[in-house]
Amino acid sequence: MSDPASLSRLIEIVGERNALRDPADMAPYLREWRDLYVGKTPVVLRPGSREEVSQILAHANAHGLKIVPQGGNTGLVGGQIPDDSATEIVISLSRMNKVREIDAAGFSMTVEAGCTLQAIHDAAEAADRMFPLTLGSQGSCQIGGNIATNAGGTAVLAYGNTRELVLGLEVVLPDGSIMEGLRSLRKDNTGYDLKQIFIGSEGTLGVITAAVLKLFPLPRERDVAFVGLSSPEAALELFSTARGRAGAMLTGFELMPRVGLEFTLRHLDGTRDPLQAPSPWYALVELSSGTESGDEQAPTRALMEAILGEAFEAGLVEDAALAESGAQAADFWRLRHGLSEVQREEGGSIKHDVSVPVASVPAFLAEAIAAVEAKVPGCRPVPFGHMGDGNIHFNVSQPVGADKAAFIAGWDDMNKVVHDIVQRYGGSISAEHGIGRLKRDLLAEVKSPVELEMMRRIKQAFDPNGILSPGRVL
Amino acid sequence: MSDPASLSRLIEIVGERNALRDPADMAPYLREWRDLYVGKTPVVLRPGSREEVSQILAHANAHGLKIVPQGGNTGLVGGQIPDDSATEIVISLSRMNKVREIDAAGFSMTVEAGCTLQAIHDAAEAADRMFPLTLGSQGSCQIGGNIATNAGGTAVLAYGNTRELVLGLEVVLPDGSIMEGLRSLRKDNTGYDLKQIFIGSEGTLGVITAAVLKLFPLPRERDVAFVGLSSPEAALELFSTARGRAGAMLTGFELMPRVGLEFTLRHLDGTRDPLQAPSPWYALVELSSGTESGDEQAPTRALMEAILGEAFEAGLVEDAALAESGAQAADFWRLRHGLSEVQREEGGSIKHDVSVPVASVPAFLAEAIAAVEAKVPGCRPVPFGHMGDGNIHFNVSQPVGADKAAFIAGWDDMNKVVHDIVQRYGGSISAEHGIGRLKRDLLAEVKSPVELEMMRRIKQAFDPNGILSPGRVL
Repeated sequence: MSDPASLSRLIEIVGERNALRDPADMAPYLREWRDLYVGKTPVVLRPGSREEVSQILAHANAHGLKIVPQGGNTGLVGGQIPDDSATEIVISLSRMNKVREIDAAGFSMTVEAGCTLQAIHDAAEAADRMFPLTLGSQGSCQIGGNIATNAGGTAVLAYGNTRELVLGLEVVLPDGSIMEGLRSLRKDNTGYDLKQIFIGSEGTLGVITAAVLKLFPLPRERDVAFVGLSSPEAALELFSTARGRAGAMLTGFELMPRVGLEFTLRHLDGTRDPLQAPSPWYALVELSSGTESGDEQAPTRALMEAILGEAFEAGLVEDAALAESGAQAADFWRLRHGLSEVQREEGGSIKHDVSVPVASVPAFLAEAIAAVEAKVPGCRPVPFGHMGDGNIHFNVSQPVGADKAAFIAGWDDMNKVVHDIVQRYGGSISAEHGIGRLKRDLLAEVKSPVELEMMRRIKQAFDPNGILSPGRVL
Repeated sequence: MSDPASLSRLIEIVGERNALRDPADMAPYLREWRDLYVGKTPVVLRPGSREEVSQILAHANAHGLKIVPQGGNTGLVGGQIPDDSATEIVISLSRMNKVREIDAAGFSMTVEAGCTLQAIHDAAEAADRMFPLTLGSQGSCQIGGNIATNAGGTAVLAYGNTRELVLGLEVVLPDGSIMEGLRSLRKDNTGYDLKQIFIGSEGTLGVITAAVLKLFPLPRERDVAFVGLSSPEAALELFSTARGRAGAMLTGFELMPRVGLEFTLRHLDGTRDPLQAPSPWYALVELSSGTESGDEQAPTRALMEAILGEAFEAGLVEDAALAESGAQAADFWRLRHGLSEVQREEGGSIKHDVSVPVASVPAFLAEAIAAVEAKVPGCRPVPFGHMGDGNIHFNVSQPVGADKAAFIAGWDDMNKVVHDIVQRYGGSISAEHGIGRLKRDLLAEVKSPVELEMMRRIKQAFDPNGILSPGRVL
């Protein structure tokens, strides 16, 4: 427990109203939505400015207090939840939630760390622009957390990970000094690109307080198809056909198995199967265009029809439905995005967030499905996700009627089976969710001693006292 | 001078044949093409493998020898040329020039650092893929140098800087240890993204020996227009129109002034003005598409006509020529790329490689042109470059008939005038060329003490003995 004088000073910095100590007030900050992590903290601080963040860190650094920054509390690896010791102090950035500026002509916007991703989408769209980062949790996740974890999502294929979408960052360092880097330049080779060090560092090197983001033209047309396929091999061929024909206009390519669609249809209100007969696999294909169609048929529609026509002729596709309206396109996307939340309705689910080279996805899936079915007979693999990026959420639901706790107790063993296969394909055991606390012990297995030593040197260079997000990543 | 025993050991590592000591053999490595930097070295080492690079660095680190890595020797800020002390040892990566693998289905390729950019383009194209990085020097520059300097060029608008095009890196660290990071994953959030630290670090933190690069679909159609404009303001409006209509299909938007076109027409064989009457400014606009046109009219052509039609109606455009063939498109591009080399035919030229927010380009140009003309009456500003990125090569040619040496003597003074204006627009004094030796003293003026301290800590963490590219950047 921190000493009372130190704590009083922190409370003084943010003001009593913004220092939560009542258990009911603190509860939302101490538990993540799947209940996999629940922790304790002496106080939740809600600073209102970068100066307050700076004073908090300077004080913590001088007195050896541990700090855990938190955004929208949607992280999946436990990084944002304090541990059980009740010594880690939570800083929530949620009060710093202003969109400071939109430069439509310059295709950029400046936002504070606590802006929700949805608020950023809305503000960009109001200026006839698009911020492409798209996640299932976008109503509650915050951009500071998105940047700190280099979030992925469904738009990476065309627009890149969060790293590629950041032009400038303002960061408070562990000693309280402020890196003022809110530049909106497309090109700037003056020295080391310091913002890169904080993107994806999961709150271990500094606290992001504001960012300049890249904007894009708002697509004038979008076409979405829901496609039934016989196998992941067919999905890969369809992906190659679509990418070859559509190039940068291919803005989404998501894979899901029949069992995943069944979960969504069973547990999510107002959903229906877009196709008449079941297929073993499905792809959701999205094309977007910056060109205006006027009264004519949209070029994305013609292009989609050409892609699917070629795929039908080649025998790749079993059936396909094209969204006839924006509402229907949203329905198709809901079948995919809804999958994240419905899995818990089917009992225990052991998660893997992995990536392999795109061309290896089918072989990886065949091998991993066989391996987990051999390990736990009757288990239900639900591998879905961003096929175009080689990123599969290889989740496995418990056998129907099995004991949830007993199934979940096999988490680490099943992880090992899957991760070993991932490693053989040169893949990643954390494609987009990060390391946090969940995968910290695995890091040494997948990184070389040289890489681990470099990470430690960076941590030492930026946070020599180890006050920020201790026990996360390293 | 290094002691002879130490030198013998280095020569032993690469073998006599690959250790150049004859002045004639060494000359091409000791002088850059504009003669702005000429240096001395005891030996030019040409290692043939990463193991040899590792042995060289380990030895140098143990004995305090200084090392300067060099790629194609096309850098513009003196980073790759040893100083006058004859103690800095040049390592040329040019023997390590193999394309190791092309994964067409996975849209990636693995190359050694010494591959020329042109060889990479050719290999990708042979596999029906494109590597987008495009520079005037691509016949001789090498990918290791491109990555070490985070090179920009004319394709940044659609595909990003070199940083965005790198999936994995193999780097030899100053102590000789090897970071094996040749991963081809689109998404990998396992710990800090170490490759980012080396990209753009200008050879001061490690020696890049190989890389995995992103590939893209080879565009099926390209359309290029050469457009006469009354002002940079009109160019900015044309850019907004084009980007809004074409989105990701807008793959080039370059600006040049009349005087620049005149230089090219005067000094480059086989060039001609595509337009009948002169305009004060020109834009080169390129659209690319992944879609196949078959026999029909290309969609890029229809889109280009729509963009130019709208711009004519709005009074933005004075005249425009559309390339009717690939050869003519190449001719248009040659007018722009040729500009880099023809400036020297017009006497002294003082260079600035600056960027400002895209929307500020016209105001910046008006102010900077007026300022340099007031400073040196009769001088000829030739500001050209990547308008879509806000990156202008604000070069200034000497007055006709003036003394070259006297004009060049005013280099630093003119830099100061221009850079002060850049700073007021929140811009960068080195958009794509880097800092090297040329702008090292300027860095402290444009970076905050916090940023400089962070850079020093990184240098200290990776190269504590300061053996790599000393006096560059920091």
